[in-house]
Amino acid sequence: MDRSVQVETGTLVADAVRAAEIDLGLPCGGQGRCGRCTVIVREGEVQRPPNQRLSGEDRAAGYALACQATIEGDATIYVPPQRIERVLETDKTATEVQVPLSYDALRDQPLRKYVVSVSEPSLDDQTDDWSRLKRELARQHDVQELTAELPVLRRLSGALRDGEWTVTVVVEHDRWEEPEGPPRLVDVLPGDHLESLWGVAIDIGTTTNVVWLVDLLSGQVMAQVADYNGQIARGEDVISRIIYASKGDGLADLQRLVRETLNGLIEQAAEQAGTRPGEIYRAVVAGNSTMTHLFVGLPPASIRLMPFVTTINQIPTLRAHDLGLHLCPDAGVDCLPGIASYVGADITPGVLSSGMCYGDKLSLFIDVGTNGEIVLGDCTWLIACACSAGPAFEGAGVLNGMRATRGAIEEVWIDAHTYEPTLRVIGPEGEAPRGLCGSGLIGLMAELFMAGIVDKGGNVNVALDTPRTREGEHGGEYVVVWADESAAGEDIVLTDVDMDNLMRAKAAIYAGFSVLANSVGLSITDVEQVLIGGAFGQYINIEKAIQIGLLPDAPWESFHYMGNTSVRGAYLALLSRESRQQVVNIASMMTYLELSADNTFFDAFSAALFLPHTDESQFPSVVEQMAERGR
Amino acid sequence: MDRSVQVETGTLVADAVRAAEIDLGLPCGGQGRCGRCTVIVREGEVQRPPNQRLSGEDRAAGYALACQATIEGDATIYVPPQRIERVLETDKTATEVQVPLSYDALRDQPLRKYVVSVSEPSLDDQTDDWSRLKRELARQHDVQELTAELPVLRRLSGALRDGEWTVTVVVEHDRWEEPEGPPRLVDVLPGDHLESLWGVAIDIGTTTNVVWLVDLLSGQVMAQVADYNGQIARGEDVISRIIYASKGDGLADLQRLVRETLNGLIEQAAEQAGTRPGEIYRAVVAGNSTMTHLFVGLPPASIRLMPFVTTINQIPTLRAHDLGLHLCPDAGVDCLPGIASYVGADITPGVLSSGMCYGDKLSLFIDVGTNGEIVLGDCTWLIACACSAGPAFEGAGVLNGMRATRGAIEEVWIDAHTYEPTLRVIGPEGEAPRGLCGSGLIGLMAELFMAGIVDKGGNVNVALDTPRTREGEHGGEYVVVWADESAAGEDIVLTDVDMDNLMRAKAAIYAGFSVLANSVGLSITDVEQVLIGGAFGQYINIEKAIQIGLLPDAPWESFHYMGNTSVRGAYLALLSRESRQQVVNIASMMTYLELSADNTFFDAFSAALFLPHTDESQFPSVVEQMAERGR
Repeated sequence: MDRSVQVETGTLVADAVRAAEIDLGLPCGGQGRCGRCTVIVREGEVQRPPNQRLSGEDRAAGYALACQATIEGDATIYVPPQRIERVLETDKTATEVQVPLSYDALRDQPLRKYVVSVSEPSLDDQTDDWSRLKRELARQHDVQELTAELPVLRRLSGALRDGEWTVTVVVEHDRWEEPEGPPRLVDVLPGDHLESLWGVAIDIGTTTNVVWLVDLLSGQVMAQVADYNGQIARGEDVISRIIYASKGDGLADLQRLVRETLNGLIEQAAEQAGTRPGEIYRAVVAGNSTMTHLFVGLPPASIRLMPFVTTINQIPTLRAHDLGLHLCPDAGVDCLPGIASYVGADITPGVLSSGMCYGDKLSLFIDVGTNGEIVLGDCTWLIACACSAGPAFEGAGVLNGMRATRGAIEEVWIDAHTYEPTLRVIGPEGEAPRGLCGSGLIGLMAELFMAGIVDKGGNVNVALDTPRTREGEHGGEYVVVWADESAAGEDIVLTDVDMDNLMRAKAAIYAGFSVLANSVGLSITDVEQVLIGGAFGQYINIEKAIQIGLLPDAPWESFHYMGNTSVRGAYLALLSRESRQQVVNIASMMTYLELSADNTFFDAFSAALFLPHTDESQFPSVVEQMAERGR
Repeated sequence: MDRSVQVETGTLVADAVRAAEIDLGLPCGGQGRCGRCTVIVREGEVQRPPNQRLSGEDRAAGYALACQATIEGDATIYVPPQRIERVLETDKTATEVQVPLSYDALRDQPLRKYVVSVSEPSLDDQTDDWSRLKRELARQHDVQELTAELPVLRRLSGALRDGEWTVTVVVEHDRWEEPEGPPRLVDVLPGDHLESLWGVAIDIGTTTNVVWLVDLLSGQVMAQVADYNGQIARGEDVISRIIYASKGDGLADLQRLVRETLNGLIEQAAEQAGTRPGEIYRAVVAGNSTMTHLFVGLPPASIRLMPFVTTINQIPTLRAHDLGLHLCPDAGVDCLPGIASYVGADITPGVLSSGMCYGDKLSLFIDVGTNGEIVLGDCTWLIACACSAGPAFEGAGVLNGMRATRGAIEEVWIDAHTYEPTLRVIGPEGEAPRGLCGSGLIGLMAELFMAGIVDKGGNVNVALDTPRTREGEHGGEYVVVWADESAAGEDIVLTDVDMDNLMRAKAAIYAGFSVLANSVGLSITDVEQVLIGGAFGQYINIEKAIQIGLLPDAPWESFHYMGNTSVRGAYLALLSRESRQQVVNIASMMTYLELSADNTFFDAFSAALFLPHTDESQFPSVVEQMAERGR
């Protein structure tokens, strides 16, 4: 497909491509770092600044980075198909949700519906529509001092007349942020419509957005939908997005992209549940600090710069129409509070739904993603930190890494004698492998180590008697899939450089555990339970994660997979004022430990840069297994 | 100038003309009633539904009403230049404004500015920007529990850093509508900017919009600007606009038009005063109920239909960004309360600024425009009504009527012997007359009557020995200006039909006075002072208005011109919380009398359909003057 577009001299190739309405992702946000927006200049004048991602050969072959190169005259440019496949296995994100046994909509919900009969106006009683409605709502349902904003007032006159002076009103009472505040009119519908009351719990992940549509009368989740965050095309991690947001209208662009993703999901969820978005009356939103800043259009620049502060950790409750969210326009949109730039409003609801804030067991909560967030504590105290693990476990920074979509190798077993691997690939039977996702990488690392293919330092032993190990362009490498069995027709390998990135990621997380525990005078071995949150977390194989020293060496039964704790926490906060208040309590009782200001972190990190760890006494079960295998 | 445009078959000519970007007014809102959107079909297929405004001859000559005729094929249409001249003599609207002697910004203003030094964040104190600002504002200025909305939060991070951690904040305290409510952050500016504090008083008239830019520190009005309401092109009176609003996207169109007019005025006022719109932190808005509904985008349909109720008389305080008003985005926009569909938020501030609510003199307040609004009372009670006078005094419904712009005859004297007139015309010396404005019409009616040219019933005596009176197309008529002296080269006349419309208008208003007084057991002669409000009111010649029986026959010294009481009331409410509360008090103490439900109104109206009145005892001074002149 050929497209022509006219641009000014000096235009970035990326902008020209976008002007031609071709969707080209900029995984690093246009910094020229990731090399994944490569295009081929077939002919014409394109200026290509020097970049380490492009070798002399690449340049000679016409390669250019779209985010760096500029158009200087007529040019023909080939845009290769994107590497990122945009198919999310939403089935994998759906989960069984139990409604809390104690849920009672009448007691717990700030939202209520009432049917009101309003007396028709006459020349003897020309009271305005609004005062008339307020009067009857006070009389018939004892709702006093009702307030309303513009969007619902615009529909009032029509609803009263269409309903022949009987209407159903949606009223928000005793909002958590202003418990003594007056009730607020959210919607007015002609006639009698008490049959439903809808709300949504939203989780804005850097990678994946999730929407749960909830029947607030019963508390049941009636639809669960998920999609990639549309912002991925402008950067894969939060840092890339922050950089993109600071350029031109980047912030508005990112806000629009996530809004479009969410509106699509809301539409889809409403359709599944047989309702319409306009009848959704409240949203509770979880997300890390960068995601919430971008969602509401706050510039996120200071999150990235020393000393890493947000504009605001507790965003005031907004209205759907302020944000262009397709709900009832007056629906409250309640962004949960975070506590720091890198311990945001994904972790606070996570702690809520993990339950660690209720019991007296010393618990370690971890949410592994691009950033690993860690919380330690019990019902009386909580301390949290964030470790910049990097995106290695999400497949970035790894030559054949990819996200957990079709074609991703999600599990690996290696025969310790033949060094031959057995794989499990996401997708239908016989799906050809395309790369390695996070769980596959952890499994592969563990198997390579336990089979003696890589040493404690993470280096591939190329001297082994197998064609699977060899010296490659990036140092030693292990061939996981031969070219003729792979989807792309090229070998899928794990290199020393990949291993190095993965080691740093796992070391950062483990060092986080240690420093956090030590900061309160405890040891990692004191932890009684480990709660693993995050969509990625649930695919981690505990055994393998312990083998590589990513997770502490505790008995398996002390580990609990929590799934997407973030959206689940948002769901709980949507259900009841009390749970919503509990998120505030969690945020205010949680101490944040800034690892970059902690002088023990670097030592802990260096100590963890081995398999499983320089201090093997911390991994007795692994030492035992190694001994069994004669290593 | 020729313009071509492609439209679908069946498109209204008016829509086609607008698509060609030619501004064609629809004075009656597109009802086919006023006949003032006439265009000429030069050739082609245009369907013209029968309409009383077009005679057979008109049709034969190619005339069509743009708001009724539809395009059925290729056509060439001539759009004559508009009759309405869009030049407002804003100098005439400017007025001397005294700052109330007692004004004290620190005590009276809800708005305050503070300079705050915020400690710079560090790895040891990563408190978010917002909490940091709140903390220092509480410490340094004892401002507790500050709240903020999204637009100002979006600028917070930049302002703190640009100002190197010193900022000026604008805070709204103790708002009249929520005196116990928390203070609200309106703006944050880098550095120290205590030198100014701006607000605007806005009057949205059906015809004219007025903006006063006020220095809230001193209370002084620093700029007064006015312009025609951009909605005029969609209908000249409120009824036409309501009809227009109910069609397609008419409501959004009308809201946009008035917003554009106001934004233009705000820009102009800011420039005059040497500031910028973004530094204006509060607006108080006066306007009749239809104007306020259209301004905020509430459908006004029910205002026009029996039993004439508004959606809301007291619109909640809005934000400039909600309305697209070019002020500081978080500036509060406070629409004053009205009490009924036809006694709106132009009358309540009018009563405030007239001062009638403070003294114990029995006062009659009138605001004459398309509708005549009348208030009777003193500091202990108030009763109000609205009489549908029709637009005759604004120049509509009168053959040679026009608004008070250049070329309008604003005063007339007639020689009782020769019947020859002497005129005063708006504009520079020697300006050729184009028509008659309201004050000119009142003067002309009075002079014609006192000179014996029209009888008590308002009929022109065509038997008089003068070429000035004659039988015309619309019955008897008096020639005010001969064709060779007029701007258009046609005779300017006043016809029996015009007189009939004018008689109805003045009778409606006078009947309003009587019914209002009688309803509380008083007579119109008990009134101690007559306060004349409205931009038009100030040009009424009291003597002439009494001669025609428009105003009651009270001593001249009891009449007081108040000028634009509406904008002046808005100005007072902008200055102080107390005055703002006073408008609420006025609204709640004022009783509304619905004339259409009053069975004495029709009799009073009929009795007033004479010059000066059937009951001459109510006009002793006029009877005396007539006697002196031997009539």
